[in-house]
Amino acid sequence: MKNPGRLIGVGTGPGDPELLTVKAVKAIEAAHVVAYFAKQGRGGNGKAIVEHLLSAEKTLLPLYYPVTTEIEKREEAYRNQIATFYDQSADAVASHLEKGRIVAVLSEGDPLFYGSYMHLHIRLANRYPTEVIPGISAMSGCWSLAGIPIVQGDDVLSVLPGTMAEAELQRRLSDTHAAVIMKVGRNLPKIRRALEASGRLAEAVYVERGTMANAAMTKLVDRLDGDAPYFSLVLVPGWEANR
Amino acid sequence: MKNPGRLIGVGTGPGDPELLTVKAVKAIEAAHVVAYFAKQGRGGNGKAIVEHLLSAEKTLLPLYYPVTTEIEKREEAYRNQIATFYDQSADAVASHLEKGRIVAVLSEGDPLFYGSYMHLHIRLANRYPTEVIPGISAMSGCWSLAGIPIVQGDDVLSVLPGTMAEAELQRRLSDTHAAVIMKVGRNLPKIRRALEASGRLAEAVYVERGTMANAAMTKLVDRLDGDAPYFSLVLVPGWEANR
Ligand SMILES: C[S@@+](CC[C@H](N)C(=O)[O-])C[C@H]1O[C@@H](n2cnc3c(N)ncnc32)[C@H](O)[C@@H]1O
Ligand SMILES: C[S@@+](CC[C@H](N)C(=O)[O-])C[C@H]1O[C@@H](n2cnc3c(N)ncnc32)[C@H](O)[C@@H]1O
Repeated sequence: MKNPGRLIGVGTGPGDPELLTVKAVKAIEAAHVVAYFAKQGRGGNGKAIVEHLLSAEKTLLPLYYPVTTEIEKREEAYRNQIATFYDQSADAVASHLEKGRIVAVLSEGDPLFYGSYMHLHIRLANRYPTEVIPGISAMSGCWSLAGIPIVQGDDVLSVLPGTMAEAELQRRLSDTHAAVIMKVGRNLPKIRRALEASGRLAEAVYVERGTMANAAMTKLVDRLDGDAPYFSLVLVPGWEANR
Repeated sequence: MKNPGRLIGVGTGPGDPELLTVKAVKAIEAAHVVAYFAKQGRGGNGKAIVEHLLSAEKTLLPLYYPVTTEIEKREEAYRNQIATFYDQSADAVASHLEKGRIVAVLSEGDPLFYGSYMHLHIRLANRYPTEVIPGISAMSGCWSLAGIPIVQGDDVLSVLPGTMAEAELQRRLSDTHAAVIMKVGRNLPKIRRALEASGRLAEAVYVERGTMANAAMTKLVDRLDGDAPYFSLVLVPGWEANR
């Protein structure tokens, strides 16, 4: 039997190229193929973070999301189109693995924490030797940049997608010491209301493009409503000693 | 006014030295003083992870925890002794900062996520230029090692200290998609009961010394009760596609 390749999910961290781990750098350098998800016509953020490691002889395998903005996310047509896209992406990666190649799949932040890489992992990890190299998550990058001690001692941390229903968000914010709200984007007004209703608005810190060159942060009370960029999250510190 | 030094909280990651970030490696190399918490007579785990970076001319500043095993953790005497220890540790670091030195304080995993570094941060960051370099958290290291997709899409992740009361642990496990239970140690029997009562035991994965040379993992149902080592945690995967 011929030698199968090796699938490596590589966490690229939140944006600053120096936040790659030593292990991630070595894995990208050793890979024959570097795969990454991107929007049609875009370079892909994961690729931008590791650009300095992509020597000319490496094969690049961009996986372009289908243009689905015209379909509502909760519709079945959307889900089918996306599932087909992940199937085809897995096939594209598998064809390199079948040839014995090492394929590094870039994943912003930490691969197994809300990362697109997970869709390839569940399709391929049972068929090919696979390794996942953790990355600095966006939340770690953001609370470190802001210098916010997030949890200590017996604190509970809740990581909440900003996509959830307002009442549910409010309930969970009222029932945790610390919180991170991911996927802010157009959910900002809803998130603000849920924080206000749960009495946590005053402490909340908004961070956009954390650790990237154009990072910005502010207390959430000082940020106007309106859409936030894709790369943004909200931190609600837990540790009382800190307040 | 003379040039003040610089305080750098450096995340060392969960154990594998290759999981240091490039930024952390550079910061340790550039530091005049490397401080780290350790038990009396021990080397300190953070220090062990970065041993290969500690050249002979670097000043090492071990901060030894007072021997407090004979006092109950919840007693005031314990809390006072620990607070005094952190005050003195901050003074020891400050005396180097006053001399204009760069002091790197090692922190296992991610510094601002349940890390001892936080006690120095709150005492010093308002007085000296400070930077925090995030590290791979123990939970990221463990779910990557185990290849467990932890959260996707609209999933909620709850990070729960195993020290909390059993009923509270059970309630929170019943009300989340994914969970990470930190600080397992002697709390293992309690954690097992709470997982059982919340119907999550079958999915739970136990990881000890994740990413260290002697790492081990198993489904929690296959692990006997009895004390777990300090470096252990329990993962409860959220993403349904994965089950
Ligand atoms: C699909 S999730 C990917 C999370 C990533 N795998 C991680 O480990 O953090 C995308 C969300 O992560 C957050 N995010 C990613 N990078 C960020 C950054 N540099 N600054 C702020 N938020 C970021 C945003 O909330 C965004 O909606
Ligand atoms: C004081 S907390 C420090 C957490 C650390 N700052 C982080 O970012 O993960 C210590 C707890 O982290 C967990 N832990 C740390 N390193 C670990 C490892 N290598 N494997 C499993 N658990 C670990 C254990 O649950 C332990 O009780």
